[in-house]
Amino acid sequence: MILSPQDWNSRVVGRVSGYLDPDSPSHIVQKRHEDSLNEELAYCRGLGLPAVMLSLHSRKSNNLARILQTYFETSHHPTLIWTSVPMICHRTMRVCDEDNSNEEAWNEPWHWWTKFHECMGWDKRIGVVLEISADLPSKDIVNRWLGEPVKAIILPTSLFHNNKKGYPVLSRAHQQIVVSMVERDAQVIVSGARRSNIVYYLQYLYRLWKRRPYVVDDPMLSYARGWEDFLQTPLQPLADNLDTHTYNVFEKDPVKYDQYQKAIAQALSDLQMKRKEEMKIQEEDSAGLTNVKEIISGKNGIVENDRPFTVMVLGAGRGPLVRATLNAADITNCKVKVIAVEKNPCAVVVLAAQVREVWRDRDVTVIPGDMRQINLSPKADIIVSELLGSWGDNELSPECLDGAAGLLRPGGISIPREYKSYVAPICSPRLWAAARAASPGNAQQIEKNLETLWVVYMQNKHNIAETKPVFTFEHPSEGIKNQDGQEVTDYRGLKVTDNRRSTTVTWEVKQDNVMHGFGGYFDCVLYGKEMLSIVPDTHSPGMISWFPVFIPIRTPLRVQKGDTISATFWRCVNSRRVWYEWIVEVDNHTTPLHNPNGRSSEMLL
Amino acid sequence: MILSPQDWNSRVVGRVSGYLDPDSPSHIVQKRHEDSLNEELAYCRGLGLPAVMLSLHSRKSNNLARILQTYFETSHHPTLIWTSVPMICHRTMRVCDEDNSNEEAWNEPWHWWTKFHECMGWDKRIGVVLEISADLPSKDIVNRWLGEPVKAIILPTSLFHNNKKGYPVLSRAHQQIVVSMVERDAQVIVSGARRSNIVYYLQYLYRLWKRRPYVVDDPMLSYARGWEDFLQTPLQPLADNLDTHTYNVFEKDPVKYDQYQKAIAQALSDLQMKRKEEMKIQEEDSAGLTNVKEIISGKNGIVENDRPFTVMVLGAGRGPLVRATLNAADITNCKVKVIAVEKNPCAVVVLAAQVREVWRDRDVTVIPGDMRQINLSPKADIIVSELLGSWGDNELSPECLDGAAGLLRPGGISIPREYKSYVAPICSPRLWAAARAASPGNAQQIEKNLETLWVVYMQNKHNIAETKPVFTFEHPSEGIKNQDGQEVTDYRGLKVTDNRRSTTVTWEVKQDNVMHGFGGYFDCVLYGKEMLSIVPDTHSPGMISWFPVFIPIRTPLRVQKGDTISATFWRCVNSRRVWYEWIVEVDNHTTPLHNPNGRSSEMLL
Repeated sequence: MILSPQDWNSRVVGRVSGYLDPDSPSHIVQKRHEDSLNEELAYCRGLGLPAVMLSLHSRKSNNLARILQTYFETSHHPTLIWTSVPMICHRTMRVCDEDNSNEEAWNEPWHWWTKFHECMGWDKRIGVVLEISADLPSKDIVNRWLGEPVKAIILPTSLFHNNKKGYPVLSRAHQQIVVSMVERDAQVIVSGARRSNIVYYLQYLYRLWKRRPYVVDDPMLSYARGWEDFLQTPLQPLADNLDTHTYNVFEKDPVKYDQYQKAIAQALSDLQMKRKEEMKIQEEDSAGLTNVKEIISGKNGIVENDRPFTVMVLGAGRGPLVRATLNAADITNCKVKVIAVEKNPCAVVVLAAQVREVWRDRDVTVIPGDMRQINLSPKADIIVSELLGSWGDNELSPECLDGAAGLLRPGGISIPREYKSYVAPICSPRLWAAARAASPGNAQQIEKNLETLWVVYMQNKHNIAETKPVFTFEHPSEGIKNQDGQEVTDYRGLKVTDNRRSTTVTWEVKQDNVMHGFGGYFDCVLYGKEMLSIVPDTHSPGMISWFPVFIPIRTPLRVQKGDTISATFWRCVNSRRVWYEWIVEVDNHTTPLHNPNGRSSEMLL
Repeated sequence: MILSPQDWNSRVVGRVSGYLDPDSPSHIVQKRHEDSLNEELAYCRGLGLPAVMLSLHSRKSNNLARILQTYFETSHHPTLIWTSVPMICHRTMRVCDEDNSNEEAWNEPWHWWTKFHECMGWDKRIGVVLEISADLPSKDIVNRWLGEPVKAIILPTSLFHNNKKGYPVLSRAHQQIVVSMVERDAQVIVSGARRSNIVYYLQYLYRLWKRRPYVVDDPMLSYARGWEDFLQTPLQPLADNLDTHTYNVFEKDPVKYDQYQKAIAQALSDLQMKRKEEMKIQEEDSAGLTNVKEIISGKNGIVENDRPFTVMVLGAGRGPLVRATLNAADITNCKVKVIAVEKNPCAVVVLAAQVREVWRDRDVTVIPGDMRQINLSPKADIIVSELLGSWGDNELSPECLDGAAGLLRPGGISIPREYKSYVAPICSPRLWAAARAASPGNAQQIEKNLETLWVVYMQNKHNIAETKPVFTFEHPSEGIKNQDGQEVTDYRGLKVTDNRRSTTVTWEVKQDNVMHGFGGYFDCVLYGKEMLSIVPDTHSPGMISWFPVFIPIRTPLRVQKGDTISATFWRCVNSRRVWYEWIVEVDNHTTPLHNPNGRSSEMLL
């Protein structure tokens, strides 16, 4: 009664009696405990508590899950369930061999939890509370816990030892776990006999939190703050025109345009070098040439040397790549003629203004229109574009650039030259539940949500296996060939390309886990050695333009150590749109085909 | 052009080129075959064919399935897909050992088919066409095929040999397969070199079909004709009043009321016997008794002997059990006082008319009202009821009879005395797809449909394991006891009973299979040895009153030889309704909880 109603509704977590086991093998005990549990839950509901904590004792939790589902179905107030499990199962440890390094005993409670969570339909109202043990398991097992929705950790006071000054402190390994859990929004519960002033524990934990690797060091960390595990639908810059706000965000990237500038500079100096070599050959040739030849090639050699390089920026937006090109020209001391093609009328206005005001003394032309439909001459020596999405080709870069292939002169350079999409199978009940719940109540929408790519800064997830490449695209791209081996061309004389793809990727599972979908990434060769990457192992440091994608599967799949995950992705194209389909097989179990005929998600051409 | 449009639209099955393999390991072949397949499918669509036949060659059919799903998504005309597979895989046979009795080779094509069917989401538009082989597999494997939606069988002419008269005939084993397939609506395709006049094949197959076990011998078979695999929602006779039509159907059962009559007769004669014994003891006692005792017990002994037995028919409907009771009284030469309790006003009218006209000289009283709410005296010696549903207690017999327990005198007899529900895990893509599709387009309804019991005469299914009991109910039932071991009674002095149940049933899987749900049955002890049963192994011969139930699971589960299926069923009760919940576990894989809190199906009290 001392607490205000708001405190009861937001700060107090109910604790269900620990002895209750509605999955007891005895029917009589089961029914009695069921009744008691229902009574206690009803009391929590009566108090309006925001969360109720209960304990799991084994893999058997069907009846508990059933009771809680009824509790959810009959409650209007959104209660969370905090499911407490130990980090290690002492019962299993006693049974299993010493040789086993107790792996099973460390695995066991994770199985209790996921079995229960699965039975609750991976409901996002269910979280886990981890009782930290004195011994700690291998890194793999800790990492798997980091993929689960850990609401709180319990630190028994026995884990603390007193430092020289007599204050309670944790071992380094325990410190690390506490910090990484708290980073994922877990709360800390200190339990057990009070061996020291309670304030000291609090102060210590607070200091621990403050001392963690300082986030401002990594621009991505500070940029992504608040966006952790928040799902967004991917942009469709081709079908929709971006707004000023979006341009503002992307133009701020501290790394991306630097990389572009370097790549353009490299390309320009390579072209220059090539031209010089050609000139040299020409001069040598012309020395011994007849007049006839001289008349034809004339003094072109010398004129050519002076001719500026034509650089087309396709999809120039508000001009960051124009700027990068001009800078690169300055650095390499090249003359460039920049042609900025842009289809978004609002951006064209900004570009035109910059031509008038900023680039007055430079050779910059703005061409409004869709790069796939314009025809310009002279052709470009270099084409520069930034049409990549979080999963590489998912903003239709291949279709756009192939449609603009007629603008590039033979032997010209496309920046980017090549890009690849990547996937890794991940465990993330939180992301899966978030995708599923994106529009609650509408079951049809749920199916759609689970057949859609989501752009998200993934935090609460665990990689089940390494990241592997899926689709590759190169520019200029190769045309398809007919049966005689000749390239097929369309009515404009452009090479006909086939940007349909299908790839099967397989992984071996190293640890029991549950797969909820894929993390999707890309990398890209701009030119030469200049790369952009959001693949975790090779992420361009400091680049913030892209969050990865989460590709869900409709039903989470349980995978066991030794299983093979086999995922097939299709990139499908018709005259109006592009979409992905995917299917996952684990041993004998197969998901349904996701997104057949692009019924749930598509990119419009 | 010779065929009419109707013939094209209903009689012609398209055949896709056999060589096409859109799952070829070569990407180039894959794309080419994909294009050709799409062309051929478009042609079939153009012709408006009702079905298209194609062949599977291995377990790899993801891309084929993907193309067909796109075909479905983009077609308005409802085309069926006939998937042809051989009965045996010769490739596997060559690889595997002789010792293995070729089991794998016989299993392999079934895997091709179910893998493909699973990938198509068990769509009911997909059927299988089985190429019958010269050798035949074990019965288990044939039976598994009988559970699949076999649209046609292919009989190569090489399977036929000529009989003495030179006509083509099949071996006995092949005859059996043909008949059992055709019984399940499969068509027959005779293929291969024509070794005889084609009319002879036709005549032979027609004769074969005519010669099959004559269906009229089994009343159930002729009664169920046309209802095969047709799903109905279970009746709720407690919440809804039955109509005349329903009474008409059920009163016609040639077996059920005979069984009741026998049971009542047995009960009456047992009561008579008991009374005689008691009289004898009484007489012996009274011979040596004091007057005091005589005054108290009086001449009751003699009067009692003459007192008619009170038989209450609870839920008398239009009177079939009253008739059975009167017949039983005549047979056993007992006097009975029949009290017919009925809550349905329409049925009460019919009962009253029968009392006036048919049972004029018998002691029959009609009491309109709900058996749970009336109070009568004298109490009944025998209570007779027929409140059972297809799954035993699913029409709330336990709740009705417990509510009427006050009407039975202590030591009285309830007919039925005990009933049990049963389940067997089954494979039946057809039933599952039918349940799912019961209201197409509405995804929320699909979930509900897969959490509902369906009454259905199951034909196109295969039992994965034996039938096992689930819930048992006895009458009169035992009351629950408090902590002191005393029975708890309610305000009317009735025993408080607990009709909640939960049971876990486990099976060992003997053969790779796919589980789509359960067949549900019941049996019932009326009295003594008199039983009613719709459990397949003990089915009361000729009884037609109950079709079994199909209990679906939300996602079909693939099970492998050696796996353990573990299913838990709950019967949940609150003050207003009763419902079932269920969950199935196979090894590490768990279904979600079905029907939590009765959200999809329930029986109203």
